[in-house]
Amino acid sequence: MQQFTSAEWQSWERFYRANFINSLTGFKSASLIGTINAQGIPNLGVFSSMVHIGSDPALIGYINRPVAAAPHTLANIKANGFYTVNHIHPAFLEQAHQTSAKYPDEVNEFAAVGLTEEYVEGVHVPFVKESHIKYLLSLKEIIPIQLNDTFLVIGQLEQVLIDQSLQPTTDGFLHLDLAGTICSNGLDAYYKTELIDRYAYAKPGRDVTKL
Amino acid sequence: MQQFTSAEWQSWERFYRANFINSLTGFKSASLIGTINAQGIPNLGVFSSMVHIGSDPALIGYINRPVAAAPHTLANIKANGFYTVNHIHPAFLEQAHQTSAKYPDEVNEFAAVGLTEEYVEGVHVPFVKESHIKYLLSLKEIIPIQLNDTFLVIGQLEQVLIDQSLQPTTDGFLHLDLAGTICSNGLDAYYKTELIDRYAYAKPGRDVTKL
Repeated sequence: MQQFTSAEWQSWERFYRANFINSLTGFKSASLIGTINAQGIPNLGVFSSMVHIGSDPALIGYINRPVAAAPHTLANIKANGFYTVNHIHPAFLEQAHQTSAKYPDEVNEFAAVGLTEEYVEGVHVPFVKESHIKYLLSLKEIIPIQLNDTFLVIGQLEQVLIDQSLQPTTDGFLHLDLAGTICSNGLDAYYKTELIDRYAYAKPGRDVTKL
Repeated sequence: MQQFTSAEWQSWERFYRANFINSLTGFKSASLIGTINAQGIPNLGVFSSMVHIGSDPALIGYINRPVAAAPHTLANIKANGFYTVNHIHPAFLEQAHQTSAKYPDEVNEFAAVGLTEEYVEGVHVPFVKESHIKYLLSLKEIIPIQLNDTFLVIGQLEQVLIDQSLQPTTDGFLHLDLAGTICSNGLDAYYKTELIDRYAYAKPGRDVTKL
């Protein structure tokens, strides 16, 4: 085993350290967060920190970097109260990555990167039309993380849009690999996935069985 | 597009709803958290909510369910102050899933599922010997999420162990797919991954380029 300690990575060049540390947490669900500002200009950003908080009520969180580094998405969520999360597929992966560029607030990032705004009735924030799986969140709480000035932003699930070609299984599961949802690792690596297995609910003293 | 609203999933059977809602957040980094209690009995649990909080200082979080549902890992982390996170590989995937069974506090879950405790000098919590990528965290903060009685548990990275066969790239990145790290989705589905591409840091007005 190679052993690394904090004294070592604190001495590393900043981007080397960021690549290494960001790799460690494993594969992540890179998704596009869609928002709109008070002037009606939409914003789109790729985030890889979506995290399941609970199913009942259905709560989903993400980590927002310090305001100085990533101001637009958080400001728009605060102003509007609603935001969308859109899965990424290989057909528009380059456009999705390009949303990580630091565009000025007045730039419509859908237009800048070549993706399409989609509005559904009664919802005033944009979805990404090209995405096969997407959902609407309403802001519930912004929890400051004082250790490094980031935020845990928690939204409640309000609506889900899923392409007709992907039906939930008889037990409610979604085979995201069949929908082509990608995942990410580190700052800039994207992956497709292949199912190994689903396993039945585990109980002490019972063998693991495939579903 | 199929459109689902909150009134619908609130009417669903509990496990159907849990499978559906847990699928939405996308692929996750299922990892094994290793802890030890005050009596010296180790505990091992699979968690799929590891989330990168920051690189400098290196902070990594996870969501702990309400104490009544998932008491042991959190109690051990509070008592000891240190815990390990261990990547999962296909060779011991069934054992990893089995750690989600609700064993009594006095059961050593390494022994119960057939995985091996590994201790390194100066560290008094167990790693999983079979894991190729693993790290030690020291508890920094437990943030209660009052919306549903869960917790964001944040640790600071103290040590990293990586199998000799996996070298960081020249820019610090770790090719987790080559190490066989799996990812998960929903409550019980596990996946292998295949790299699509890495892309250069994005800037406005510049084409996306592969690394």
